[in-house]
Amino acid sequence: MAIDFKKELETAARNMIFVHDPDLLIKIIVRMVVDKVQVEHASILMYKPDRQAYVLTVSGGSLAKKIPIGLAGFDKDDSLIRFFRERDSRLLFNSDVLTLEGAQAYLKTGQTKERLKHLLADVLYQMKMLETVTCVPSYFRDELLGILLLGRKKNGKSFLRGELDFFEALASNMSMAIRNANLFKELKSELDKKHQLFMRTTIALVAAIEAKDNYTHGHTTRVTNLSLEIAKRLSRKNKKAWDNKFIEKLHIASLLHDIGKIGIPEHILNKRGALTIGERNKIKEHPLIGVTILKPIRELEQALVGIKYHHERPDGLGYPEGLKGDQIPLVASIISVADSFDAMTTDRPYRAALYKNEAIKEIRKLSNLQFNPRVTEAFLELCQEGKL
Amino acid sequence: MAIDFKKELETAARNMIFVHDPDLLIKIIVRMVVDKVQVEHASILMYKPDRQAYVLTVSGGSLAKKIPIGLAGFDKDDSLIRFFRERDSRLLFNSDVLTLEGAQAYLKTGQTKERLKHLLADVLYQMKMLETVTCVPSYFRDELLGILLLGRKKNGKSFLRGELDFFEALASNMSMAIRNANLFKELKSELDKKHQLFMRTTIALVAAIEAKDNYTHGHTTRVTNLSLEIAKRLSRKNKKAWDNKFIEKLHIASLLHDIGKIGIPEHILNKRGALTIGERNKIKEHPLIGVTILKPIRELEQALVGIKYHHERPDGLGYPEGLKGDQIPLVASIISVADSFDAMTTDRPYRAALYKNEAIKEIRKLSNLQFNPRVTEAFLELCQEGKL
Repeated sequence: MAIDFKKELETAARNMIFVHDPDLLIKIIVRMVVDKVQVEHASILMYKPDRQAYVLTVSGGSLAKKIPIGLAGFDKDDSLIRFFRERDSRLLFNSDVLTLEGAQAYLKTGQTKERLKHLLADVLYQMKMLETVTCVPSYFRDELLGILLLGRKKNGKSFLRGELDFFEALASNMSMAIRNANLFKELKSELDKKHQLFMRTTIALVAAIEAKDNYTHGHTTRVTNLSLEIAKRLSRKNKKAWDNKFIEKLHIASLLHDIGKIGIPEHILNKRGALTIGERNKIKEHPLIGVTILKPIRELEQALVGIKYHHERPDGLGYPEGLKGDQIPLVASIISVADSFDAMTTDRPYRAALYKNEAIKEIRKLSNLQFNPRVTEAFLELCQEGKL
Repeated sequence: MAIDFKKELETAARNMIFVHDPDLLIKIIVRMVVDKVQVEHASILMYKPDRQAYVLTVSGGSLAKKIPIGLAGFDKDDSLIRFFRERDSRLLFNSDVLTLEGAQAYLKTGQTKERLKHLLADVLYQMKMLETVTCVPSYFRDELLGILLLGRKKNGKSFLRGELDFFEALASNMSMAIRNANLFKELKSELDKKHQLFMRTTIALVAAIEAKDNYTHGHTTRVTNLSLEIAKRLSRKNKKAWDNKFIEKLHIASLLHDIGKIGIPEHILNKRGALTIGERNKIKEHPLIGVTILKPIRELEQALVGIKYHHERPDGLGYPEGLKGDQIPLVASIISVADSFDAMTTDRPYRAALYKNEAIKEIRKLSNLQFNPRVTEAFLELCQEGKL
């Protein structure tokens, strides 16, 4: 029996370390206890910093039905919590583990301290409410992280010393694992925040730049949204989920696809009449200016091809390099369709907007010439479904 | 003896999980082994993905002097590594642990397989070179993470069974801890990359915006650098190290302090003659325009005060709110000095640059009126040290 527990514990500890979601970790632990130790139910009261309370997670038995998970919160001054936070169990029983029998026996002796007598009576009452016969607290550096609450054994017998030792060691490993999981969670949330900060700042700066130009207002946002929609559709068509990296690359590239226009004189960008060849060539520099601006940023290397090549065409008549067919990276081909559609359907200094239908027809007509046919197909499907 | 080891192991495992630097972790483990187990030396051959090799970390004894740490790399096909990667020890001895005596005894029997005979002879030779009497491999999911190499016991005796069991369990816990540390390291490096991405993209976009204006070229970079220098100096003067958060806030705020100028018509910004009152008032809107652009970005909330208030003055004559004295946040006060100094020492459409000395005099004169006196003092100290 004792050896089995040791092995269970070792395996449990090993696996716990790699579960980085604290809530999932707790669920796994209570389920494991119910399975391996054959108790009627097990639950964990775990401290949740965001709720400033100890919250119950239950597994097995009738208790799970009686107490809605996540609802039962015990605050820091609650008797059960206070008893273990102040390590009164260790004081009274020379062990952090509290059993129902131990508590009852102690209360029957006459030598109880007044404060602890009342507190322990409260604790006993709560244990009965929770159908708990044994409480195993879990500490990290003297701070109460949680309490493992155990129901009766299915065979009706009391816990053996070896079993109680196992629970105590489990609670101790649990505290490490939960602490570890919380650290991971914090780090991941920081990473997420930093990502949001990057995306939002880029969006805000691009929007501020764009706001100077009466004609392109909102263009970037629309191109970005449409590019992402096309990518989603393409991935569904190919029954291949793109990894987040591709989507992130496309997202960044579409946000920044026109950033190079900041280097084109405003009088050319906003010119109402026909452009001269010189002016046209100047405008065609914007993909490469964009690359120049962003090239120092090593982390954007992947996204740069989307910016550099979003005016290339499969027939080789695009710019800056006149790439053909499959030489054009997919990221650039997606942005190309989204960019052209948005340009066609909004007013420009030199012409009024086309109707959507005309623009869609135009894109269909130019499939394989100006646009990647796979991307065009995905785009047209979105149109048919009225998603534009 | 056995109980001591169990306790050591438990303590070690508990502490290992919270060391998130894999190199430090290995150092702690080898040092612990030398201290607690009283071996002449201990070392760990640990796989380093960046070097694609198993690299030695040594502690204690004469071996540490003989083999420069970090230099000795064993590649994946090296005999010692191959022997443990293929789990030949388990095949021959029914245990992952290999002892010098065990290997020697095995080679003396006639029944050795040819391949393993040669391999084991090589391994023995390497163990002797490394003054190692026991090798304890550490696996994570069948992948060899590293090998714990143990020198002789200081009392000259052989290892006991209990000691070997301890080492094996230690190696197993070590593999978890190292795996955990590597995961943390990866996540931290991702966070760092994302931070760099954010900073560099912001710098690039701000520089691109600034490049449109002939007069402010390089202004943002200079103001940012000077602001950070002033902050460093202030923190040294007050013998108080500012937390990274303050420095980050200042860094972001100084990078973006003039972003609102994007909303001011270029003909006003670049006007050569005197400005009308209306034009002046228009320019004074730039701190609030900056706030409007960046307000949606919750994560920038802290930095926004630096942008909003970098034209406030202690005498209350600044804008946009006419704050007085200590009402002005320190971030804004620092940017104010750096911004004014840079503006004074560069040509502007309406006047030529001042000499540095004149600008410094001007700032000293305006201390307490236009500039926070503490910040001015730090700035003047930098000047005296010729750091400008």
